[in-house]
Amino acid sequence: MNVKDPRQIVAAKRDGRSLDDAEVEAFIEGYTDGSITDALASAFLMACLIRGLDAGETLALTRALIASGDTVRFEGLGVPTVDKHSTGGVADGVTLVFAPLAAALGMAVAKLSGRGLGHTGGTLDKLESIPGLRTDRSPEEMRRQVAEIGCAVGAQSPTLVPADGMLYALRDATATVPSIPLIAASVMSKKLAVETDLILLDVKAGSGAFMKTVPDALSLAEACRDLARGWGREARIAVTDMDQPLGDAVGNALDIVEAVQVLRGEHRGRLRDLVVAFAERGAQVTLGRDPEVAAAEAERALDDGTALERFRLMVEAQGGDPKVVDDPSGTLPAAPVVVPIEAVEVGTITAIATEDIGLASGMLGAGRIRKADVIDPAVGIVVHCKIGDRLEAGQPIGSVHARSHDDARDAVERVLGALSLGEGPVSVPALVHTWLE
Amino acid sequence: MNVKDPRQIVAAKRDGRSLDDAEVEAFIEGYTDGSITDALASAFLMACLIRGLDAGETLALTRALIASGDTVRFEGLGVPTVDKHSTGGVADGVTLVFAPLAAALGMAVAKLSGRGLGHTGGTLDKLESIPGLRTDRSPEEMRRQVAEIGCAVGAQSPTLVPADGMLYALRDATATVPSIPLIAASVMSKKLAVETDLILLDVKAGSGAFMKTVPDALSLAEACRDLARGWGREARIAVTDMDQPLGDAVGNALDIVEAVQVLRGEHRGRLRDLVVAFAERGAQVTLGRDPEVAAAEAERALDDGTALERFRLMVEAQGGDPKVVDDPSGTLPAAPVVVPIEAVEVGTITAIATEDIGLASGMLGAGRIRKADVIDPAVGIVVHCKIGDRLEAGQPIGSVHARSHDDARDAVERVLGALSLGEGPVSVPALVHTWLE
Repeated sequence: MNVKDPRQIVAAKRDGRSLDDAEVEAFIEGYTDGSITDALASAFLMACLIRGLDAGETLALTRALIASGDTVRFEGLGVPTVDKHSTGGVADGVTLVFAPLAAALGMAVAKLSGRGLGHTGGTLDKLESIPGLRTDRSPEEMRRQVAEIGCAVGAQSPTLVPADGMLYALRDATATVPSIPLIAASVMSKKLAVETDLILLDVKAGSGAFMKTVPDALSLAEACRDLARGWGREARIAVTDMDQPLGDAVGNALDIVEAVQVLRGEHRGRLRDLVVAFAERGAQVTLGRDPEVAAAEAERALDDGTALERFRLMVEAQGGDPKVVDDPSGTLPAAPVVVPIEAVEVGTITAIATEDIGLASGMLGAGRIRKADVIDPAVGIVVHCKIGDRLEAGQPIGSVHARSHDDARDAVERVLGALSLGEGPVSVPALVHTWLE
Repeated sequence: MNVKDPRQIVAAKRDGRSLDDAEVEAFIEGYTDGSITDALASAFLMACLIRGLDAGETLALTRALIASGDTVRFEGLGVPTVDKHSTGGVADGVTLVFAPLAAALGMAVAKLSGRGLGHTGGTLDKLESIPGLRTDRSPEEMRRQVAEIGCAVGAQSPTLVPADGMLYALRDATATVPSIPLIAASVMSKKLAVETDLILLDVKAGSGAFMKTVPDALSLAEACRDLARGWGREARIAVTDMDQPLGDAVGNALDIVEAVQVLRGEHRGRLRDLVVAFAERGAQVTLGRDPEVAAAEAERALDDGTALERFRLMVEAQGGDPKVVDDPSGTLPAAPVVVPIEAVEVGTITAIATEDIGLASGMLGAGRIRKADVIDPAVGIVVHCKIGDRLEAGQPIGSVHARSHDDARDAVERVLGALSLGEGPVSVPALVHTWLE
């Protein structure tokens, strides 16, 4: 086939034919160098979305995305390197706790994050709510910090998989986001471009996640697993519950407060449990630990302050105010208006419209709808109750942190509206649906 | 449904849902006013192409295209108005002969043409090869000319269905051309925007047409028929053969020579037969003629010079040199190199790769690959033989009119390569496969 005219590649996919590696490569190269227009690329993406991409095409796409930029390797650390990534959910502060905990257990975590769109900021934005903390670290600074203290979180360079950023912006603008192969290639290209000994991936499933059902999340997890295999990389992929917020805090500074509480061993529940599950899996694969031993070590590191100490070192190393560890609420920016959320009815929580809680936080100013939006680190929502909890009228169940009373009132209403109450037995969703390897 | 975000409309079609009139209208309006990007529009077109458009959506699209510009009405002519359009083929000079013939029979033809891409020019380009002839006529000039002599051919104004021009250019650039509903909406929007008493549409089927098979052409014809019905307009639609060139001439000035020969009654064959078939159908519908009477009248008007006289008046009225009627070859631009085509083998023509002959003419400079290409009116190809003809080695079968001997040599080779020779009985394709009304 003559690949000089890229329309022929689009026509092939349009007509349901499978593309070969050279065709996929030529298309991504052409889009990256500007010879293929947004219009032709979006027609291609729509054809890919509707017709699908097989495993070979998805791997070729991932390879082409990676080839658009640099790859990163953290060498000479002497300890196994682990990357951890979540596809995104509500109150998902796992990485904030996981990185120092894994470091405490003898792994090295050099986490490179992007700044996506969402109801709240991502890991970078949350960390940046700590006064002074910087995430614009060079690879060499990252390497040195990880060698010294075992963990670092930095902004991924614009030269890491640049084609993915271009394609994602185009997909967002052209209704071509919801394609499992395209999502898998996007997620995994950024993981595979950073060489580590293990990739831990958390694919969220439920009302607060992009994948609303467990089968869809499982398909995405399998596609990501296949890409890791195709690239010859070790990965463990969990499909986990997002039918309710994972932690309690939905914001940025509020998530740091909660992360510190977990790192102090003061906060138990699903967030801590999931952090431990990932730490256990990481120690098992990279350090050869027995699962039960690894889990016990992780629990201990949270209870005895070892993980907290790593967090303090990481904050300090990145220029942040270490007082956040001892007095998070006093150190972090605070919202001018804080309003309690109180239950208005009696009943047992049977379901939580999790995305609505994320949305309520986004409307307070905690996230980005557009790339240019500025995040307010202080605002957000805290909700302490989970599915299966019994509520009494007037019972305090959380708080809204807002810029104005109007905003706060609106958010309280949205949070209460997101809770379904009922009577009788309630089945609490499993935290981890499955692990793939 | 909230139609404020046009991505929702694209997502609906992407997911296979049927769009309502307001959604289709909002999308085309948004694209025309620039608020919808090329990228979102091409994703939409790809979704429409793969998922399909039902009859209601296709009508809504056609209505939205028409609403993007002006409509035209030729009033007070006192005779029925007929529009004639072909979806395009090789050596398809029907309109050149049909317009004056229909005028001679008592119909009025005010033909508005666009300038598309193709191996040769369109009707406008062919007519403009006549020295002095102008096609940039105002609607009022068109009306006056038709009132006086019964026929006029002019360039359609840029304000006639402007959204179609925009969409077509985008489709051409994004591999989203081959969709029957999109083609039908494009073709019919321009016909329905011009009010006439009858639309005669010629949908070509075969190796020299966009629709390669009769079933595909029939689907397009049916979609066009449905649009005419939905708009409340009288239409007769023929599916006709394009498995071999219709006439002999494939160029621009060469087509005028052939048209004059047909109008003089000197040239018999499939081109004349198809012109007569359309004239017969037109007279039957608009003048209430008995089919056999109408056909006989048409044949007579070609044989007795009545149609030729209308052609002369039309050329004169549009500023062209009327000598073209008496001495076409002496009046029209001539190519510097004219080379005979001679058969090299003995055999019966079993098939003609018709598109290849169009392509050969295009490579001589007779057409436009891109909008900005300049057509050379003098170049082209004449092939006198048809499927079923017996050839002897050395027998002259036509000529190539070129700018150089190299070009000519190449074209001769391509034409000979397009002819399949064999022995035994050959089935000649029917000229008209079917008529729809």
